[in-house]
Amino acid sequence: MSTFGNYFRVTTYGESHCKSVGCIIDGCPPGMELTEADIQPQLSRRRPGQSAISTPRNEKDQVQIQSGTEHGRSLGSPIGMMVQNEDHRPKDYSETDLYPRPSHADWTYIQKYGVKSASGGGRSSARETIGRVAAGAVAEKVLKLAAGVEIVAFVSSIGEVSMDRNAQDPVFQNLLNTVTRESVDAAGPIRCPDENVRDAMTKVVEKYRDAKDSIGGVVTCVIRNCPIGLGEPCFDKLEAVLAHAMLSIPATKGFEFGSGFAGTALPGSKHNDAFVHCDDKGRLITKTNNSGGVQGGISNGEHIYFSVAFKSAATISQEQSTSTYDGKDGVLAARGRHDPSVTPRAVPIVESMAALVLADLFLAQKAREALMKLVQ
Amino acid sequence: MSTFGNYFRVTTYGESHCKSVGCIIDGCPPGMELTEADIQPQLSRRRPGQSAISTPRNEKDQVQIQSGTEHGRSLGSPIGMMVQNEDHRPKDYSETDLYPRPSHADWTYIQKYGVKSASGGGRSSARETIGRVAAGAVAEKVLKLAAGVEIVAFVSSIGEVSMDRNAQDPVFQNLLNTVTRESVDAAGPIRCPDENVRDAMTKVVEKYRDAKDSIGGVVTCVIRNCPIGLGEPCFDKLEAVLAHAMLSIPATKGFEFGSGFAGTALPGSKHNDAFVHCDDKGRLITKTNNSGGVQGGISNGEHIYFSVAFKSAATISQEQSTSTYDGKDGVLAARGRHDPSVTPRAVPIVESMAALVLADLFLAQKAREALMKLVQ
Amino acid sequence: MSTFGNYFRVTTYGESHCKSVGCIIDGCPPGMELTEADIQPQLSRRRPGQSAISTPRNEKDQVQIQSGTEHGRSLGSPIGMMVQNEDHRPKDYSETDLYPRPSHADWTYIQKYGVKSASGGGRSSARETIGRVAAGAVAEKVLKLAAGVEIVAFVSSIGEVSMDRNAQDPVFQNLLNTVTRESVDAAGPIRCPDENVRDAMTKVVEKYRDAKDSIGGVVTCVIRNCPIGLGEPCFDKLEAVLAHAMLSIPATKGFEFGSGFAGTALPGSKHNDAFVHCDDKGRLITKTNNSGGVQGGISNGEHIYFSVAFKSAATISQEQSTSTYDGKDGVLAARGRHDPSVTPRAVPIVESMAALVLADLFLAQKAREALMKLVQ
Amino acid sequence: MSTFGNYFRVTTYGESHCKSVGCIIDGCPPGMELTEADIQPQLSRRRPGQSAISTPRNEKDQVQIQSGTEHGRSLGSPIGMMVQNEDHRPKDYSETDLYPRPSHADWTYIQKYGVKSASGGGRSSARETIGRVAAGAVAEKVLKLAAGVEIVAFVSSIGEVSMDRNAQDPVFQNLLNTVTRESVDAAGPIRCPDENVRDAMTKVVEKYRDAKDSIGGVVTCVIRNCPIGLGEPCFDKLEAVLAHAMLSIPATKGFEFGSGFAGTALPGSKHNDAFVHCDDKGRLITKTNNSGGVQGGISNGEHIYFSVAFKSAATISQEQSTSTYDGKDGVLAARGRHDPSVTPRAVPIVESMAALVLADLFLAQKAREALMKLVQ
Repeated sequence: MSTFGNYFRVTTYGESHCKSVGCIIDGCPPGMELTEADIQPQLSRRRPGQSAISTPRNEKDQVQIQSGTEHGRSLGSPIGMMVQNEDHRPKDYSETDLYPRPSHADWTYIQKYGVKSASGGGRSSARETIGRVAAGAVAEKVLKLAAGVEIVAFVSSIGEVSMDRNAQDPVFQNLLNTVTRESVDAAGPIRCPDENVRDAMTKVVEKYRDAKDSIGGVVTCVIRNCPIGLGEPCFDKLEAVLAHAMLSIPATKGFEFGSGFAGTALPGSKHNDAFVHCDDKGRLITKTNNSGGVQGGISNGEHIYFSVAFKSAATISQEQSTSTYDGKDGVLAARGRHDPSVTPRAVPIVESMAALVLADLFLAQKAREALMKLVQ
Repeated sequence: MSTFGNYFRVTTYGESHCKSVGCIIDGCPPGMELTEADIQPQLSRRRPGQSAISTPRNEKDQVQIQSGTEHGRSLGSPIGMMVQNEDHRPKDYSETDLYPRPSHADWTYIQKYGVKSASGGGRSSARETIGRVAAGAVAEKVLKLAAGVEIVAFVSSIGEVSMDRNAQDPVFQNLLNTVTRESVDAAGPIRCPDENVRDAMTKVVEKYRDAKDSIGGVVTCVIRNCPIGLGEPCFDKLEAVLAHAMLSIPATKGFEFGSGFAGTALPGSKHNDAFVHCDDKGRLITKTNNSGGVQGGISNGEHIYFSVAFKSAATISQEQSTSTYDGKDGVLAARGRHDPSVTPRAVPIVESMAALVLADLFLAQKAREALMKLVQ
Repeated sequence: MSTFGNYFRVTTYGESHCKSVGCIIDGCPPGMELTEADIQPQLSRRRPGQSAISTPRNEKDQVQIQSGTEHGRSLGSPIGMMVQNEDHRPKDYSETDLYPRPSHADWTYIQKYGVKSASGGGRSSARETIGRVAAGAVAEKVLKLAAGVEIVAFVSSIGEVSMDRNAQDPVFQNLLNTVTRESVDAAGPIRCPDENVRDAMTKVVEKYRDAKDSIGGVVTCVIRNCPIGLGEPCFDKLEAVLAHAMLSIPATKGFEFGSGFAGTALPGSKHNDAFVHCDDKGRLITKTNNSGGVQGGISNGEHIYFSVAFKSAATISQEQSTSTYDGKDGVLAARGRHDPSVTPRAVPIVESMAALVLADLFLAQKAREALMKLVQ
Repeated sequence: MSTFGNYFRVTTYGESHCKSVGCIIDGCPPGMELTEADIQPQLSRRRPGQSAISTPRNEKDQVQIQSGTEHGRSLGSPIGMMVQNEDHRPKDYSETDLYPRPSHADWTYIQKYGVKSASGGGRSSARETIGRVAAGAVAEKVLKLAAGVEIVAFVSSIGEVSMDRNAQDPVFQNLLNTVTRESVDAAGPIRCPDENVRDAMTKVVEKYRDAKDSIGGVVTCVIRNCPIGLGEPCFDKLEAVLAHAMLSIPATKGFEFGSGFAGTALPGSKHNDAFVHCDDKGRLITKTNNSGGVQGGISNGEHIYFSVAFKSAATISQEQSTSTYDGKDGVLAARGRHDPSVTPRAVPIVESMAALVLADLFLAQKAREALMKLVQ
């Protein structure tokens, strides 16, 4: 449904053609400094229309906190947040009156709900993600203040052009150590911090844009300074909840963490992350990090990193042979201009969902730790 | 935690060295024929010790229904199920008293819970999956009777040896149409239905077994006849809940559905699944199925298919240089014999988790459909 | 927290001194006619300032649907609703800077959350109930369209003045058969449909109003035409969820259903509701209804009726000897005018919470019924 | 359904005529000393057959911990617990093949689930409460070790014979200060600590027993040393969750806390609990406790006390005129001997449910407190 999380819980509402979109956060700790200025930056990063390679629709997306704060501090009560819908140009989508858009959600929504919304796909609209990003910004602030957690996502592939994101590659591991949100944005709208592939990626996007086509890609995300012990076995392992969160983002096709799919070809003798004592931290660390910061579903203090596959956007401006709702063959041509690659815009969404996952698991573990001390 | 699902809900208990493992299913529809004979086959398929290439521990794993059925039919009340623990050889693991096993859950469990269990990793034990498989067998029967749903998983890669599981490959798509649980098991313990790679896979497992090493792989699963309309946007999209379920299985590293990671390199014009009318079904179908049976988080009636990455087993018999719990470098050598590849054994677990996901979402949609008709 | 229900789920936000209050409904069936006109009447009934015996603050409380409907019909997506905060006169409460108001939530809120909100009691404000009433109006429409459910609450006692609400009293049982929301409101602001006690009740309220005091009362509610089979044993029995819902309303002190506390003195031979066949309905009914429409936690088709105790309002205008936050004895005198009896205003809140409970349980049972038919 | 709680969560299974009944506790803090000896006493107190005034069926009810502990300490993993079913005499109930027992759950269960279980009412059986009591004993140990919480319930009325349980009565308030589980049990099977009414209560039970009838009563419960700050507004106020828990116990008819229904007749000037500083505790306390230890849904450090109404047992040995399932008038005579008053046996069940509520809310608040400190 539209609620995510248990202790730190967000409920979102809104689609493309209604008055507003937004969310309610329940479980935010009280007494934390919080204003719209904490939330707006990620909303603006999510916003389309930032450059020539993304969609030119201009959505202002100014967030308004409705409740849950006073004098710039959280009260502990639910935080209502809202962003007005302004520039949605409903007429651009009119051909969907006849045709369900291929690989879009028009057809499945009408099958499931029995009614057709103006946007066709209802809540499958990218605009639905505004509530997630607003909530994620709050979660991120909680994590940063409470534990110094850093979450940075970036584009690691576009079409066939890909960074090396092999877990055994020291260059990649070094990138995970050092990449910042600033360095990602400094890379321009493509949001790839690797200058070796960045221009090639941009060219790929431009090529498909000019062909009135679209192209997919991969977003990789690293979480640094995650407290040890997060994740609730057996069903709510850290990676399981992360996977849930990531695959709930529109247009995703896959999730892998640590060594991922490629790691399945490594034998245990090479894949296992041996322990070694770290004098600085006064605890064990692992020599390698094929585990991606999670063992047995529980964070181990190493960097958590994972990748999310995004398909090419379903809405393209070129003609597509397909069927009308009532079964007649025909040709659909979407009017308007469309984002040739949604992958770069997904970067703050991935970060937001990661923050929501961690904030929730952090509260669960803090409760356990508090009681453990009291009952032993 | 240890509960999965909302409408059709399973709660599991048990680890390696306790009296029993089991589960409680809540929400099973009443009046369905159900005995242990419906559940035992999948538990037996999950059981180790079935062949020379899997671990020789002999676990009998006979399930006993405790409640929720009478005269061979479900009552609608919670179904308690239990499997005794018998042959757990706790002494084989004794070296874990000194060493946290690399890439196992020993260290994170002690960090999280503050206590060391006999098995080290507590609930990260493969034995925990018995409750899932028992519950999954019940979910599967519900789905089969109610909608003719078929769920078949199989091994699609072991180490570097892989079937072609490209969404655009007609041979692969044909396999998804035709593969059965019988044809998978007929392939022998490797559980790969593709005879072109099966023997090579077995050789890979044997090679690592002989080297006292282990190797990972990929399990692919197809769901046929899934009712249209399952999946609860926005956070509980069908693929999101599937990903959650799959990544909650021990030793998993990734999840992809439909065209998956590879599909990100296809432009929208090729990736989009055009609609066409199917006279037999009296409804639209798609010409291709890069979507993997899900659009906008909702099943569209095409085959749902997805793949799950399993790492090489962390427990290997060869010596590993690592650290003791208290920070001293040393060499750990696991005694006993260990499974060189857990991937084939994961096949029924993947099927079970898929069934649990679908049963839950099926109930949610049935509730909506019932009320939709009444309020319009 | 701030979410109620599982399948028909409402999440609320807002306190007295923020921008707006509101809610998100998730799980409303699609295709139902729904506009603000369906919701406003109950919000207006909840509104203070309707008469000389309730508080004169003028809150306009116009609801705005933000999402989830198009062209006057529900989409099946979350329904966001908002009511602006306008007339909250924060200065009237200024003495709470020094004194926690006795029997109000000021002190416990600061103990729990560590921060003091402008309203003192934060979410304990009556204004929090706006979201519940808005959501309840939607739930009620679902129930009415789907099953003809009628929910009517009324004041059954004020202070010492009480109707006879004994389960064995035929006059009372007849009232439960016939009372309507219109007949309750026709009784004037006291909302008691029994003309024998109505004037006495009003006099009690006026007496305490004139004494700058307050007085409590009881709201009784009847649900007619509730479908048979609602309620989810064992923990979510219909009466258990109703009790949860009712005791979550501010200022409540108790809940009883059917014969209630008085019924404990009846022996089983008199308390038991014998069955008899009803030819009209073609099914069994009960001769008496001490069970209050619920047996074993499941609705049996008879009228569901229950009563909710409301304490005298904690905020009174007369002086109270009490302590300051920092432990000094003193005298608190609340400024402003305050509602001498919140009980009549609670009527639509009780109805709303009852509707939320039933809508949620209705969906759960509809899912079960749909699957039962398919698996037998 | 059959799960209660979020962070400290219990799921139960089992009915009268199956192999076993039991539960799974999820969320118990690790490292706590825990063996069957912590659980058995409350199970034995719950057990029928303890005296001449309760049912003579001899159920041994020995609990076996299945998982979640090692070496007498909790692991933090789910605690499975089981009690075998032994002496259920299914034949005694055979007449239910024809007649739904009046005010029992036979008819509603068959309406809801479509199948008739051997016990008629399925999960409405008192035997279902074993899992609650086993889990409650664990919750109680957590609360006792962590915060010194004391929970004591007792019978406060049987039929027309009642203790004075008025919130303003100093004798009653003194009883709440001093009553212990030992003093309750020392009162004999009637479990009323007030010697002034105890014998009269016993005589009432004997009178109805001899008349082959049954009688109801009220159980009152006090919670001492509850930490301040428990309860999750707005929907999960402490009293709301308590009411849910209590009304989920079979045969309950009502719940009230603090001044309860009688308190509605007190004006605010008398009902309000003025604050005063307590030097010993170094904090504010209240002079009176009409609030019953809860203000605004949050515990305030005073004693929490509440009462639960239990109806006369539905199963009586005398003949009852009623209808058969298929609508024919007739006379039902239950064979066997039946408990004339279930109220005394409900005492440990009320205590157990109270413990489950508090443990869950305690974890929620501990999580909040931990994060509050970190983000300010």
